[in-house]
Amino acid sequence: MKVIETDFQGWMGGVQARMEAALARLLPGGHVVPERLHQAMRYAVLEGGKRARPLLAFAAGEVAHALPDRLEIVAAAVELIHAYSLAHDDLPCMDDDVLRRGKPSVHIEYDEATALLVGDALQSLAFQLLVEHRLADSASVQLEMVRVLAAAAGSRGMAGGQQIDLESTGKSLGLPELELMHIHKTGALIRAAVMLGAACGKVNDAERQKLDHYAKAVGLAFQVVDDVLDYEASTVTLGKTAGKDFRQGKPTYLSTLGLARSRELAGELRAEAHAALESFGGRARRLAQLADFIVLRKF
Amino acid sequence: MKVIETDFQGWMGGVQARMEAALARLLPGGHVVPERLHQAMRYAVLEGGKRARPLLAFAAGEVAHALPDRLEIVAAAVELIHAYSLAHDDLPCMDDDVLRRGKPSVHIEYDEATALLVGDALQSLAFQLLVEHRLADSASVQLEMVRVLAAAAGSRGMAGGQQIDLESTGKSLGLPELELMHIHKTGALIRAAVMLGAACGKVNDAERQKLDHYAKAVGLAFQVVDDVLDYEASTVTLGKTAGKDFRQGKPTYLSTLGLARSRELAGELRAEAHAALESFGGRARRLAQLADFIVLRKF
Repeated sequence: MKVIETDFQGWMGGVQARMEAALARLLPGGHVVPERLHQAMRYAVLEGGKRARPLLAFAAGEVAHALPDRLEIVAAAVELIHAYSLAHDDLPCMDDDVLRRGKPSVHIEYDEATALLVGDALQSLAFQLLVEHRLADSASVQLEMVRVLAAAAGSRGMAGGQQIDLESTGKSLGLPELELMHIHKTGALIRAAVMLGAACGKVNDAERQKLDHYAKAVGLAFQVVDDVLDYEASTVTLGKTAGKDFRQGKPTYLSTLGLARSRELAGELRAEAHAALESFGGRARRLAQLADFIVLRKF
Repeated sequence: MKVIETDFQGWMGGVQARMEAALARLLPGGHVVPERLHQAMRYAVLEGGKRARPLLAFAAGEVAHALPDRLEIVAAAVELIHAYSLAHDDLPCMDDDVLRRGKPSVHIEYDEATALLVGDALQSLAFQLLVEHRLADSASVQLEMVRVLAAAAGSRGMAGGQQIDLESTGKSLGLPELELMHIHKTGALIRAAVMLGAACGKVNDAERQKLDHYAKAVGLAFQVVDDVLDYEASTVTLGKTAGKDFRQGKPTYLSTLGLARSRELAGELRAEAHAALESFGGRARRLAQLADFIVLRKF
């Protein structure tokens, strides 16, 4: 067990280091005009986060025998969409948060207008990355990759989830409504990470469906665990303001299901994720380890 | 002369009506979840504006013998990027404007958080449109179209221009700095409209360069005239708050060159645009008329 963990930690650290270097290279330099915008974009993206979405893309890529050079680009594109959503989320008109990934939020370190433009420009850059590199054997597969990311980011994906979140503040939601929110808000981009990673290599339709099933379960598990951690953890461990959703009257898995049932649900979703991977055998080892990591993590 | 004008007005009205119908069809319906976001997206885009960028895309498409069904989609994608930028621009942390296209700004009609998400989701939708429809004979040309739009919208295009604009408030800029700002802020997307319209059909490299030259001149002319109109016109004629740039201490062509020289410059840019079109003959009739319209317009 110890050996497996060490192996997984090593793989994870390797992907994280690779992603940090890739993102630093793919983002415009801080000396490129307009300098302040590019510096703020780098601030918003670099040296932060667990890179959960890139890890999922790389792990899904192993199932599909995808080239790491391709995975790096799709993982970066997904991570830029994620980073843009955090910069916008933290703005005063949204969640009004001053701390993110253990550092001042973008609008605190810079200013609100710059944080707004950082998010806007990161979104454009994500799509630019997906077309400026060769990521698939055919251009039509690559067009489909752009479609997957655009749909995941848009009004019927992540941005739509944010809107549902806004409208649900102060309300008590049932489990179906809460799931609808999270399937949009975090689930869509997590699914995109897995699907884009797989699209860099070869998978058939049946395999794609299983990966999608895995991604859905992991996406929900991620959110359930986030809610539990938000309740349990301190701000220092979390790297963002703890207990905030609760204080803002946002419905969470905790407020809907209670702590015990939320923990149970996370375990069920973990089992569901593992079940979806069964037929892949050893190829899905990293995806299976990630499902464990996401559910068992303490931060 | 009167006949030509009537013919141009008819063409313009036709494209505008076609675009209104296309945008209404391509935007998610107001009854689709999350309803409020989709209603606000439709509010931000429909029944507004001169549709200058779609007109340029259609006019460039005539040069390239492009199919109208393709032009409609690329024109819509460019217009969604433009509409997203207006929704974000009007936010209190940016230009803080309450009036746009003769109606309350999105954040006034809805709220700031929704206006933020409207812009975010419109940007995603623009890229989604460019990949969900067949717009070119090969998928690799279509990937190049996505690249053109992403580059035009991003930190080295429109969003970068906004940042330069932010940083220039209260400063007195020379003509080169002012041009740099506008080449990014409005020029990049106007060039994208022309290049994407042409890419829907067939043009060779030399023709593409001429179209790009035309688009650069028209883009700058557009801004010079905007500054003159902002100074001269009333809020009612303009459909947005008049005289605002001046009061906010933003550098404009007026503040840099004065009224007489600004008018002269607009005329020079119009002549430059016409010169770039010379070799196209009758195929570039609409582009030539649009250059005239952009410089001679009163609103």
